[in-house]
Amino acid sequence: MKIPRMTVITLGVSDLARTTAFYREIFSTAPVTEYEGVTFIPLPGVWLSLYPLEKLAEDIGESVKLPAPGTFSGFTLAYNARNKDEIRDIFARAADAGAHIAKSPQDTFWGGYSGYFTDPDGHYWEVVWGPMFDFSAQGDLQFKA
Amino acid sequence: MKIPRMTVITLGVSDLARTTAFYREIFSTAPVTEYEGVTFIPLPGVWLSLYPLEKLAEDIGESVKLPAPGTFSGFTLAYNARNKDEIRDIFARAADAGAHIAKSPQDTFWGGYSGYFTDPDGHYWEVVWGPMFDFSAQGDLQFKA
Repeated sequence: MKIPRMTVITLGVSDLARTTAFYREIFSTAPVTEYEGVTFIPLPGVWLSLYPLEKLAEDIGESVKLPAPGTFSGFTLAYNARNKDEIRDIFARAADAGAHIAKSPQDTFWGGYSGYFTDPDGHYWEVVWGPMFDFSAQGDLQFKA
Repeated sequence: MKIPRMTVITLGVSDLARTTAFYREIFSTAPVTEYEGVTFIPLPGVWLSLYPLEKLAEDIGESVKLPAPGTFSGFTLAYNARNKDEIRDIFARAADAGAHIAKSPQDTFWGGYSGYFTDPDGHYWEVVWGPMFDFSAQGDLQFKA
C-alpha cells in the first residue's frame, strides 16, 4: 500500500492564539479543537492544523533553516467556490477577519475568477471559481465530465 | 457563507516533471491529471496540485520574496496511518521513490509513532499513527469518541 491520501496540513504559526482566532472566524462550519498545544480544524476530507513554527521545526527532528519573515512559503491553499458572488462574499468576510488582500477577485487568463488573501502568518489562500470544475454530491471537487 | 473547507493545496516546485513523477509513485490510488501546466492529484477530500514556484508566485499577483533553497517552507503535510506497520511500509516505498528520510519512524513523546520525509522540493510529509485518532466509514480522520 502506498500513501492513499492526505489527512492533515499543518501550518507553522508565530502566534497560535491569533491564528486560531482568525481561522475560527473564517471557518464557520467546523469545530476547532485545541489539543496539547495544537489547534485542529477538522474540515471535510482533510484537517487544517496550527502549530508554533519553532515546535513544528523541532518535531521534524533534523536541523532546518527557518524561513525569513515575509518570505513566500512556497505553497497555497485553495477553496473552489460555486460562483463569483460566493468569492466576493468570502473576500468581504476575510477582510473583516483581518486578512491581507493580496489580489482582489478578478477574471483570470484561463477563464476563471480568482483572488488571494493571506492569513496572519502570510500563508496564501486562493478563492477561485473555474468553468472546468464541478462538485460531487458530497461537495468534493472534480473536473466536469 | 464563510469558507467551509479546503479543496486544493498547491505546492510550488522547481521541476514539475520530476515532482509529478515522485507523487505518481507515492500515490498509487489517484489519477494524476496534467492540465495547462499544472499537475492535479485528486485525493479523497482534497486535491494536491503541483505548479512551478515562480509561476505560483506570479499568480498571486503581488510581489513576493521567493524562499531561499533549502529553507523550511513552514508547513507539513500528513498522512495518518492505521498502524505502525503501515508507516514502515510507506517509508520503505518513499525511500524507493527517492524521498529524503528526515526522521525515521519512531515512538513520539505523546504516545504516537511518526516519521518525516521530504519530496523533491523539500516539502515535508509526516506519516503518523496516534492512539487518539480514528477514521470514519469513509476513511476521514476523526478523534476517537
